[in-house]
Amino acid sequence: MQPKRVLGVLGGMGPLATVAFMRQLVQSTPAQCDQEHVAVVVSSIPQVPDRTQAFRGEGVSPLPALQASAHRLTQAGAGLIVMPCNTAHLWFDDLQATLPCPMLHLVDAGLHAALTASPLAPEPLRLGLLATDATLASGLYVNRAALKAPGRVSWVMPTATEMLQWVMPGIEAVKCGQLLEARDQLGRAAHALQMRGAQRLMLGCTEIPLALDEATCGIPLIDPTVELACQAVAWARSNTP
Amino acid sequence: MQPKRVLGVLGGMGPLATVAFMRQLVQSTPAQCDQEHVAVVVSSIPQVPDRTQAFRGEGVSPLPALQASAHRLTQAGAGLIVMPCNTAHLWFDDLQATLPCPMLHLVDAGLHAALTASPLAPEPLRLGLLATDATLASGLYVNRAALKAPGRVSWVMPTATEMLQWVMPGIEAVKCGQLLEARDQLGRAAHALQMRGAQRLMLGCTEIPLALDEATCGIPLIDPTVELACQAVAWARSNTP
Repeated sequence: MQPKRVLGVLGGMGPLATVAFMRQLVQSTPAQCDQEHVAVVVSSIPQVPDRTQAFRGEGVSPLPALQASAHRLTQAGAGLIVMPCNTAHLWFDDLQATLPCPMLHLVDAGLHAALTASPLAPEPLRLGLLATDATLASGLYVNRAALKAPGRVSWVMPTATEMLQWVMPGIEAVKCGQLLEARDQLGRAAHALQMRGAQRLMLGCTEIPLALDEATCGIPLIDPTVELACQAVAWARSNTP
Repeated sequence: MQPKRVLGVLGGMGPLATVAFMRQLVQSTPAQCDQEHVAVVVSSIPQVPDRTQAFRGEGVSPLPALQASAHRLTQAGAGLIVMPCNTAHLWFDDLQATLPCPMLHLVDAGLHAALTASPLAPEPLRLGLLATDATLASGLYVNRAALKAPGRVSWVMPTATEMLQWVMPGIEAVKCGQLLEARDQLGRAAHALQMRGAQRLMLGCTEIPLALDEATCGIPLIDPTVELACQAVAWARSNTP
């Protein structure tokens, strides 16, 4: 009766995004009863130091807290770890290097979803990117795309003013539960990217899909956590030992 | 940066109810940023054998699987365990007896919420009860109320036909994600209890609040998981070691 494979979710960044990811796991699983769902252990430890502040050099590194949280998961039996927080992926390689089990990369999942959804065209996909200051400034998405899908993406990003006025306040509004305010701010940023030619929007921060939807934006949205959930469920349901 | 107190959620029964409970934890926490939220580890292992079948003598006991799932939580550092599944509370005492940390009782939380919401009256509160077959037949709520709040509750329960036609199919519909069908079936059962004099409805199965709401039912609903979340958050935020 013990599950063969237990998925580990390194969460709490933020807590609502973790809840949304767990819902996504359930919705991505074809199941007729409880027992057909996948086994998951979650470490939602919101005390991980702020990732954006650490990247800016204004706060301590989140790496030790990420390692401690991942350790809870491996102690609880996790055989694969996913981390539904984009900015935390700046420490992905350092974290993976210290773990006894593999991790799936959220940005790779997002790029896969964006490029699968778009037919191969001679022109690169004009992809808008909404993300935290640290995710943008670190080149997390743009560098990974250049490495994994060279020449297939042409990025459209927010200006510094748009980041300060709309994107970062919108993300912080989600983190304190003010979803209507967040929708207004993030919607303005989405509109600006669309006006500059974005054909799709990559939601490169797990808080953003909690406030934005396609009906509001009028442009296809790519939520990397949806693809990450599908990949994680496929792993958990596989019988390969 | 390690959190002082880590809450353990023994979940997966069913997985959507666990997601709803985690959302409830976030919503019950006054927080302005990630770091102010409570630290939670979750073991969502849906392979726990069916609780209702076990109670009926038609399946194996879920106790070993509950103990294994609880063990994952204590390994991951949990200092208090809550279990957002009513029927599993039939094994609460046996489970608690083997654990190194305390648990909070979901039914006690539900009774506390129902009786706090109702002013002390000379007449007992006429409380409708929607729950699984096993929860009803075991007397989980009625016996606990007789023990903890003698004379304060007069129960109104579904008939066997209502259980077979509406309540159990409605709960199963939630477990496979058919929320509209579930709302229709559970709504009929709720209406029947109201017609027989129920003043409030105790939602004694964690799947039921996922499909029913007060606007649909036209009668105050008591969701024990809301009170359980509040008590768990209060514990996690307390500084007492």
